[in-house]
Amino acid sequence: MKFCSACGAPVTLEIPDMDNRLRHVCTQCKTIHYQNPRIVAGTLPFHQDKILLCKRAIEPRLGFWTLPAGFMENEETTPNAAVRETLEEANARVKLGQLLSVIDVPHISQVHMFFTAELSDLEYSSGPESLEVELFSEEEIPWDDIAFPTVKRTLRHFLKARANQIAINEMELLVDHIDFANRIKK
Amino acid sequence: MKFCSACGAPVTLEIPDMDNRLRHVCTQCKTIHYQNPRIVAGTLPFHQDKILLCKRAIEPRLGFWTLPAGFMENEETTPNAAVRETLEEANARVKLGQLLSVIDVPHISQVHMFFTAELSDLEYSSGPESLEVELFSEEEIPWDDIAFPTVKRTLRHFLKARANQIAINEMELLVDHIDFANRIKK
Ligand SMILES: [Zn+2]
Ligand SMILES: [Zn+2]
Repeated sequence: MKFCSACGAPVTLEIPDMDNRLRHVCTQCKTIHYQNPRIVAGTLPFHQDKILLCKRAIEPRLGFWTLPAGFMENEETTPNAAVRETLEEANARVKLGQLLSVIDVPHISQVHMFFTAELSDLEYSSGPESLEVELFSEEEIPWDDIAFPTVKRTLRHFLKARANQIAINEMELLVDHIDFANRIKK
Repeated sequence: MKFCSACGAPVTLEIPDMDNRLRHVCTQCKTIHYQNPRIVAGTLPFHQDKILLCKRAIEPRLGFWTLPAGFMENEETTPNAAVRETLEEANARVKLGQLLSVIDVPHISQVHMFFTAELSDLEYSSGPESLEVELFSEEEIPWDDIAFPTVKRTLRHFLKARANQIAINEMELLVDHIDFANRIKK
């Protein structure tokens, strides 16, 4: 950030009164421009014992497999964002279940939130941000080609609970965070 | 937003290629400026059967009571943000417990997240954003003077679980949202 989005004048980095962090502050109108983490909302869509994954058509991690997810938009709820992303990336309609994971990714200032979601039908297909959309049994999941560590942890959490005979709608919430050491390397 | 924070040129509202929403787009460098919801992270601090509340010293809702909470900062995790806000607003050190509530507030593009938190000691006091900080038993909670509906719902969820003899560390997550009709009126 170099310029004030309110008046167009240059901004400087300074610690405002009553604050303890460097902020972008406008040299003219004095507006303080805060920057905050973004939420990525998505689903773990399932049909019977299979899980839906999308092969990414865009960077980052083009060609790797992910659960459908994306940045939450203003004026929507996290469940709405998760359902919307599932429709956009996989053309898939789902019956949304409970919140399954909340995973902080502080080095990129994101929080990823995944909900369980039962596919309403099998008419899924690739949206503009996906190369392929496919149902995988546990044995078929391409673990070495999963796009993001939050997706891998959410999948493992789900599969571990299922292995323990826990019904999907009774699975507990995973609260976790990704260390810098576990980040994806580009 | 009227000017590009990257180059200072005016922005216009338009729907970019491959998108389906109006965005602020720079007329010169073509940067797309996305705007996304913000996370408010906080705690429900308790000591034995009492709950810590803070009387707000700032707008909005100056003079009303709240759980300690505030905007999550870049490069921190939600638990870190909750602990930091508790220290800043109530000078209170806590042993953080589990995530207790995730409540969408779409009309103001916020998501509020509260954790249970046992007070480590009773040396709390008002931070710069609080007029008073006090422990309340259930009967003493000033329900008519609670600052935000997300705080009220989180308190009610906690108290209902406690009335049902559920141990604090076994309380379930509340996932909820605030309708426009339940917003605070200024
Ligand atoms: Zn300015
Ligand atoms: Zn520009």
